Amino acid sequence: MELALSTTLHTGFDEAVERTREALAAQGFGVLTDIDLRSTLKTKIDAEIEDYRILGACNPPLANQAVGANAQIGLLLPCNVLVRRDREDPAAVVVEAMNPALMVQVTGDPALEAVAAEATAKLRAAIDTLASGT
Amino acid sequence: MELALSTTLHTGFDEAVERTREALAAQGFGVLTDIDLRSTLKTKIDAEIEDYRILGACNPPLANQAVGANAQIGLLLPCNVLVRRDREDPAAVVVEAMNPALMVQVTGDPALEAVAAEATAKLRAAIDTLASGT
Repeated sequence: MELALSTTLHTGFDEAVERTREALAAQGFGVLTDIDLRSTLKTKIDAEIEDYRILGACNPPLANQAVGANAQIGLLLPCNVLVRRDREDPAAVVVEAMNPALMVQVTGDPALEAVAAEATAKLRAAIDTLASGT
Repeated sequence: MELALSTTLHTGFDEAVERTREALAAQGFGVLTDIDLRSTLKTKIDAEIEDYRILGACNPPLANQAVGANAQIGLLLPCNVLVRRDREDPAAVVVEAMNPALMVQVTGDPALEAVAAEATAKLRAAIDTLASGT
């Protein structure tokens, strides 16, 4: 199982964040949290990392189904979507969403299969939109 | 492997959230994000769930080590700590942190073993503090 659904963009970093938010919104995912990890680590411990944002994406009907099926699943919610500068190619920006199939894998709970499959389809559609540049 | 490090408190819900934040802070974890999932789902889709908070806990030196070891690990950061009313016993509040060993399990990356072990020890100490009521 792949850990992430991902693509690589060749745009500015801020534009990649903006396009990712738009692609998520088109699939019903709001961004509940937005961590600028680079800025956080610089401020707190003066560490230097690449541009690195962690967007917490939540599709409310799917989150409601998931929590209804398994009270512990909030451990993996919201669904993280990384927007980060590629270490191997600093001109590129990697966008990758946590593969919701992970929820089923780590819990072993078949009650999560349907909602994870639906979340995966929607996140894959968002990533595909970014990849196609539309 | 256990998915969560957890305990059960018999206090008011808001007090459980406050005590959890204090216990995390004592182990070097700041709370970067705090999602009131009950309120979010009520507002967005008029769904009713139990009291349910998702705290995003981050220990900056450990987060820096983890991201340095594996650029994808932000998919599982910050470390979620749930504070949620127990469905089986509404007088009780469950506090549970994602087990950082999950980071090693899902990536299969041995470079994350040491940092995951350290994060686990600190989160377990925070949970133990809550469990002991100190």
